Amino acid sequence: MGRNAIVGQSGGPTAVINASLAGVLEACVARGAGQVYGMRNGIQGLLKEQVVDLTERVGSSLEIELLKRTPSSYLGSCRYKLPDFQTDPAVYDRLFAILNRLDIGWFFYIGGNDSMDTIHKLSEYGRAIGSEIRFMGVPKTIDNDLMLTDHTPGYGSAAKYIGVVMKELIRDATVYGTKFVTVVEIMGRNAGWLTAAAALARGEDCEGVDLICLPELPFHTDRFLAKVEAMQKEKESIVIAVSEGVKLPDGRYVCELSDDAAFVDAFGHRNLTGTARYLSNLIARNMDTRTRSVELSTLQRCAGHLTSRTDITEAYQVGGAAAKAAFEGHTGEMVALRRLSNDPYQCTTELVDIAKVANLEKKVPTDWINGYRTDMTAEFLSYARPLIQAELTPMFIAGLPRHIIL
Amino acid sequence: MGRNAIVGQSGGPTAVINASLAGVLEACVARGAGQVYGMRNGIQGLLKEQVVDLTERVGSSLEIELLKRTPSSYLGSCRYKLPDFQTDPAVYDRLFAILNRLDIGWFFYIGGNDSMDTIHKLSEYGRAIGSEIRFMGVPKTIDNDLMLTDHTPGYGSAAKYIGVVMKELIRDATVYGTKFVTVVEIMGRNAGWLTAAAALARGEDCEGVDLICLPELPFHTDRFLAKVEAMQKEKESIVIAVSEGVKLPDGRYVCELSDDAAFVDAFGHRNLTGTARYLSNLIARNMDTRTRSVELSTLQRCAGHLTSRTDITEAYQVGGAAAKAAFEGHTGEMVALRRLSNDPYQCTTELVDIAKVANLEKKVPTDWINGYRTDMTAEFLSYARPLIQAELTPMFIAGLPRHIIL
Repeated sequence: MGRNAIVGQSGGPTAVINASLAGVLEACVARGAGQVYGMRNGIQGLLKEQVVDLTERVGSSLEIELLKRTPSSYLGSCRYKLPDFQTDPAVYDRLFAILNRLDIGWFFYIGGNDSMDTIHKLSEYGRAIGSEIRFMGVPKTIDNDLMLTDHTPGYGSAAKYIGVVMKELIRDATVYGTKFVTVVEIMGRNAGWLTAAAALARGEDCEGVDLICLPELPFHTDRFLAKVEAMQKEKESIVIAVSEGVKLPDGRYVCELSDDAAFVDAFGHRNLTGTARYLSNLIARNMDTRTRSVELSTLQRCAGHLTSRTDITEAYQVGGAAAKAAFEGHTGEMVALRRLSNDPYQCTTELVDIAKVANLEKKVPTDWINGYRTDMTAEFLSYARPLIQAELTPMFIAGLPRHIIL
Repeated sequence: MGRNAIVGQSGGPTAVINASLAGVLEACVARGAGQVYGMRNGIQGLLKEQVVDLTERVGSSLEIELLKRTPSSYLGSCRYKLPDFQTDPAVYDRLFAILNRLDIGWFFYIGGNDSMDTIHKLSEYGRAIGSEIRFMGVPKTIDNDLMLTDHTPGYGSAAKYIGVVMKELIRDATVYGTKFVTVVEIMGRNAGWLTAAAALARGEDCEGVDLICLPELPFHTDRFLAKVEAMQKEKESIVIAVSEGVKLPDGRYVCELSDDAAFVDAFGHRNLTGTARYLSNLIARNMDTRTRSVELSTLQRCAGHLTSRTDITEAYQVGGAAAKAAFEGHTGEMVALRRLSNDPYQCTTELVDIAKVANLEKKVPTDWINGYRTDMTAEFLSYARPLIQAELTPMFIAGLPRHIIL
């Protein structure tokens, strides 16, 4: 028996993060790992030695397949940032002691920016103490904001979900043939990749959304109202996709203008949602039209019932590629996706230095926004369309998707 | 060529209302109708003589199949209540003049309570003037609140959508393993059928929702908080399904307690949403936990990407049964669904007097709510489960469901 592998999931869940877990697991088993452990709730669980034996829990090919089709993080997640090891080596000592006790040879962490920071720090510390453990990052985030990778697993399925429900919302909003403005709030605090995906709705059978507002550009309330008013002179039903993170020119979030923004919970956390509600109320106060606001909310990141097969396949592949690299001796790197061509769509994996990924954010290029600042360009559509292709339906049992849970 | 048929859609759209339209259309053609017209935007469009030739627009079997899988109302909809014909016969004169000019023999209206009121009044007026036009109602509403029918087409798909997304939201809400309360707002102003469907989520692979609040029972804020607090002592992540229509013992809607309820648009309409947001803020103010609110909003009624095949089949069947009845001379009736057995599920159609359906609402029997007022009973589950069985996937083209539009 070889040494053991361990894998964790971190940050916000996605519909396909478990496909990456399946990819790591199967590749580690195929390459001769002894046990494959899973950390419960990422590094935070590992620090409490909360690990499970994945080879036993997800042992059959049916369980692997269920795992690929189960949304959210099978192992649980955390939002935990490791301290600098120069200033606080104690937590590293503890982590490496636990890893050595488990006889770990390969360590995988599936996540976004913060998770890549974790891999970066662990691999640096490992190098400093001469550890043989290999640390590899597996990219994951619906936000698509990781540097050095063409896109992130998780984005394709979320983008597909957004394209599909925008089509459905547009159909619903036209039925009465009366003046109506629908404002749809989409995730993305600093990067507008998800909101941009609303542009995918347009096609032969759909007029598409009328206005897309990304956080990459400052939001001018007066110009926004003027645009909506002008648009509604041409067309009764106006559908607007707006990022939760749109900001005024002075840097405040638009949602901070709402009454609700004053809400503070028992722990002093402010509630930064309500952009769509605020804008829909603003329109209703200023224009002669009915309005509605819709928040896609958590649904857009956990919709296992509507995933992109392309995305699931790639999520699985980056897991496998991470295992391959680690077994070949790589450490402190992340698997990235490199696009070879759009049409036909071809994409491969490569390794990138994790220090160049950690803690950085990739935004939507502003030249992918049209001149009127209302829509995405053809270049964005060529980029995004391949990522939503094909479907992988859940395993439905008695009318509901079957999931695998710990 | 026989005389012509005409069909309209009215009230809120559903994911399967177009399957009923397909059922009416195909049965009318098969029974020898000359033309089959569609009213644009229901009676309101008919009064402006806005009709389309459905036989031409949806002529091929591929187009019929697309229609069955397209959500929202293909013909458009309206919310229009006919006046009493004793007090205001002019509108009836106009309608019947238009119908006679179109040489209509059979008239179908797909909708809920208000639409059945329309059929009732038209058939009464027709009888009074000795018209030969046959008027038939085709039931449709996600709300499942029509009398004399076991359930309504549209409910099964909405219930399935709710069951599926509750499972996904529950998975998402458990990932951090920390204290968390999710409050999900579900449609249903007076009847709790849709909110009750949240009970479907529970199963071998899902712990289910923790608390279900229907409008059939008065809502006590203090008892609600006490229940949530007690539940969270046992379990970190609590998920609550609450009807938008829950009311305080004094008759006010819970959402009227929110700051937002003060919002009045340019036309004096008050905004009656925000029940989940209000309750989630209330919990955050009173308990040591993070909270989140999710409004399923329009998504629950227009999710053509996640429908129940049982529901689509029945929606198609009630359309066909209405055509059969009208061609056999029936008028002033509605097609109802009568359940023969739960296991195996068997259901047939029958005709009911539309006067007994119009303007009445069927509520959830309160003995289908458990003793603790937290959950639905096994009886409800036996009722609802057959309605969500099997899937009919959209026709996906290039990653998105294809719709047919006028």
